Amino acid sequence: MSVGLELPENLLSINGTRLAAISAGIYSNKRDDLVLIELNQDSVTSAVFTQNLFCAAPVQIAKKNISNANPRYLLINSGNANAGTGRQGMISASDTCQALASITSCDSEQVIPFSTGVIGEDLPVDKIKRVLPELVKNLSDNNWLDAAKAIMTTDTIPKAISTEVNISGVTVNITGIAKGSGMIKPNMATMLSFIATDAYINKEIQNEILFNAINKSFNRITVDGDTSTNDACVISSTGKANNELIDRHNNDGCIAFENAITDVCSKLAQSIVRDGEGATKFISILVSEGKNTQECLNVAYKIAGSPLVKTAFTASDPNWGRILAAVGNSDIPDLNIDKVNVYLDDVCIVENGQRSVTYTELQGKEVMSQDEIKLSVKLNRGSSSEEIWTTDLSHEYITINAEYRT
Amino acid sequence: MSVGLELPENLLSINGTRLAAISAGIYSNKRDDLVLIELNQDSVTSAVFTQNLFCAAPVQIAKKNISNANPRYLLINSGNANAGTGRQGMISASDTCQALASITSCDSEQVIPFSTGVIGEDLPVDKIKRVLPELVKNLSDNNWLDAAKAIMTTDTIPKAISTEVNISGVTVNITGIAKGSGMIKPNMATMLSFIATDAYINKEIQNEILFNAINKSFNRITVDGDTSTNDACVISSTGKANNELIDRHNNDGCIAFENAITDVCSKLAQSIVRDGEGATKFISILVSEGKNTQECLNVAYKIAGSPLVKTAFTASDPNWGRILAAVGNSDIPDLNIDKVNVYLDDVCIVENGQRSVTYTELQGKEVMSQDEIKLSVKLNRGSSSEEIWTTDLSHEYITINAEYRT
Repeated sequence: MSVGLELPENLLSINGTRLAAISAGIYSNKRDDLVLIELNQDSVTSAVFTQNLFCAAPVQIAKKNISNANPRYLLINSGNANAGTGRQGMISASDTCQALASITSCDSEQVIPFSTGVIGEDLPVDKIKRVLPELVKNLSDNNWLDAAKAIMTTDTIPKAISTEVNISGVTVNITGIAKGSGMIKPNMATMLSFIATDAYINKEIQNEILFNAINKSFNRITVDGDTSTNDACVISSTGKANNELIDRHNNDGCIAFENAITDVCSKLAQSIVRDGEGATKFISILVSEGKNTQECLNVAYKIAGSPLVKTAFTASDPNWGRILAAVGNSDIPDLNIDKVNVYLDDVCIVENGQRSVTYTELQGKEVMSQDEIKLSVKLNRGSSSEEIWTTDLSHEYITINAEYRT
Repeated sequence: MSVGLELPENLLSINGTRLAAISAGIYSNKRDDLVLIELNQDSVTSAVFTQNLFCAAPVQIAKKNISNANPRYLLINSGNANAGTGRQGMISASDTCQALASITSCDSEQVIPFSTGVIGEDLPVDKIKRVLPELVKNLSDNNWLDAAKAIMTTDTIPKAISTEVNISGVTVNITGIAKGSGMIKPNMATMLSFIATDAYINKEIQNEILFNAINKSFNRITVDGDTSTNDACVISSTGKANNELIDRHNNDGCIAFENAITDVCSKLAQSIVRDGEGATKFISILVSEGKNTQECLNVAYKIAGSPLVKTAFTASDPNWGRILAAVGNSDIPDLNIDKVNVYLDDVCIVENGQRSVTYTELQGKEVMSQDEIKLSVKLNRGSSSEEIWTTDLSHEYITINAEYRT
């Protein structure tokens, strides 16, 4: 099940990157589960990793390698998270980097490992090593869709998007892929995303742009409120577009590029929610007229995290009492519930903390029956607003997670 | 469905209280849904109410009345929460108090109203008023089980318990009832509990004892992390046991009484979890060796609140990776995951942050297949420990909440 998603089309190659995907027999023997992304020598890479303290071995190695060397290869496997695997997990992750480095004649610290899948099982290093030579041989600049497919776990559809942006008269290409559908909540998720662009950019600026973009995209989604041990978002810029350097002195270009990256991240993040485990609805929650960003987010996440609100969405039940109970439960001590308005799309269901006099159950039912719903809450106490994206909670979520060992 | 619960037996009458239950046709015409508890003139009543800012009309009236007068009557209806009903809701709640006061010749502020059920629908005041005379006529000292049944909503079984405690050579009786099974999380829940005792006690001491007892019982449970708009816990002491006054100067008696009340509250709280919506397991989560109470609770609630952990329990799947991911996600910045141990009953599944070398999947599977499971987490960084109680997340929860308008 997924809401409003189609197979990605028209993905742009990124000059300076090559990709390959192969089956190493980790996820299964029937589909690809190992991806290699090659970056040119001069590329600039930034990354953000999970905030879960129980972070997987590849995350620890990846953080170290990225800070020590300029990445040339991203090596990603699905089917095994290499998390909770202790010292052996670290050795395994390093081993795969070493093996790839010796084939490609780079430093092993220039290989960045990523894993997603089952926690607590040893990484099958031999299976990976066995296919590395063929994986390297298969590198090509137009394998983005194959890569998007190979990193999937409980995802039902690959997630990828491309866009172009004009930087001072030069066209810059951006292509991003992502995976994730459960263990999804703010501060990243069981989510991997790899974005490449041929932009020429200063590294510090790129770090800032990635941080800002994630904050408005991957950190604004929740499926089940669980944060994974492995998530990462990486952006690599190859510089091959030969645009004027994006830095602080190139303000227009910098803004245009940041907007484009934010847009790519938002669409990828939304596609993760749309493919959320058991999702039957895609719900945008907009909290406005708050005193500040944090209280808007508190209210939004309290609504998005409420199993009672989520199941009401599944049932297409305009149960505004559950929504208002979630708002009242958002830990904002001085919030005056009697000033709160709630809307489903354009229908005002709650006015001044109680059912709107103009509201009819039929109006609410109509909006709730849609696949895509915008829930707006006006706090009537300030000028901040924040939007997040979430799903409902259906039988299918239980089936997936009570039957699939993730 | 419920885990390890049976119909309450041997409930003790409390000298100085009388009860009655009747069908007013609010929940349905087929069962009782209105309860009256009468308290003698000299009784001492303490209460704690929901912390949800969106609190129902009866909660607002109850708080006011309790602070202004000595309660003589508790009037409780199920089937309608009288929440989100604005000014009309306040008028309705007051109306029912007024009507009862004129029948019983007390002050209307001596009537404390409680409601539980659907949010956002007007309270059917006329239905309530119509049956009040008969309700008063039916008052009797042995109707505790009928009262426990009449306050149920999605509960599948009535919840009640009695105990005796010796206070300086005098036997004091305590009987408590409770309702609740969804919208259950710390800081009370969609939960009502009424406890009566014939103890003779100082009011300030009783307030303290109730606060402490709730903190160790009703505030240590979670079913779905939602907090309701209506919850309340009330204790009334009639003084009829003629024990030596329980106050600060009667230390032994005070401690014995507090222990007895805490025990009653714990058993009622646990019975709410055992009857949790869709519950197939009763799970105690003990977090020990923490630096302080708060971090133990953070870890415990993060585990209890994780849909992935909950569904693993439903599936009897010893998926320790999900448990460890929840621990790593508990917002304790300096927690060292490599020192954390996790046990299912006595089976050590995680040692020093990774799968215990002695652990076999079969051992975990055996514990997970039980109806009652103790999950212990040792943080290995201090001497604090806290225990909470929760349930799994099953298809039945979705069915109840996607089909029942609560």
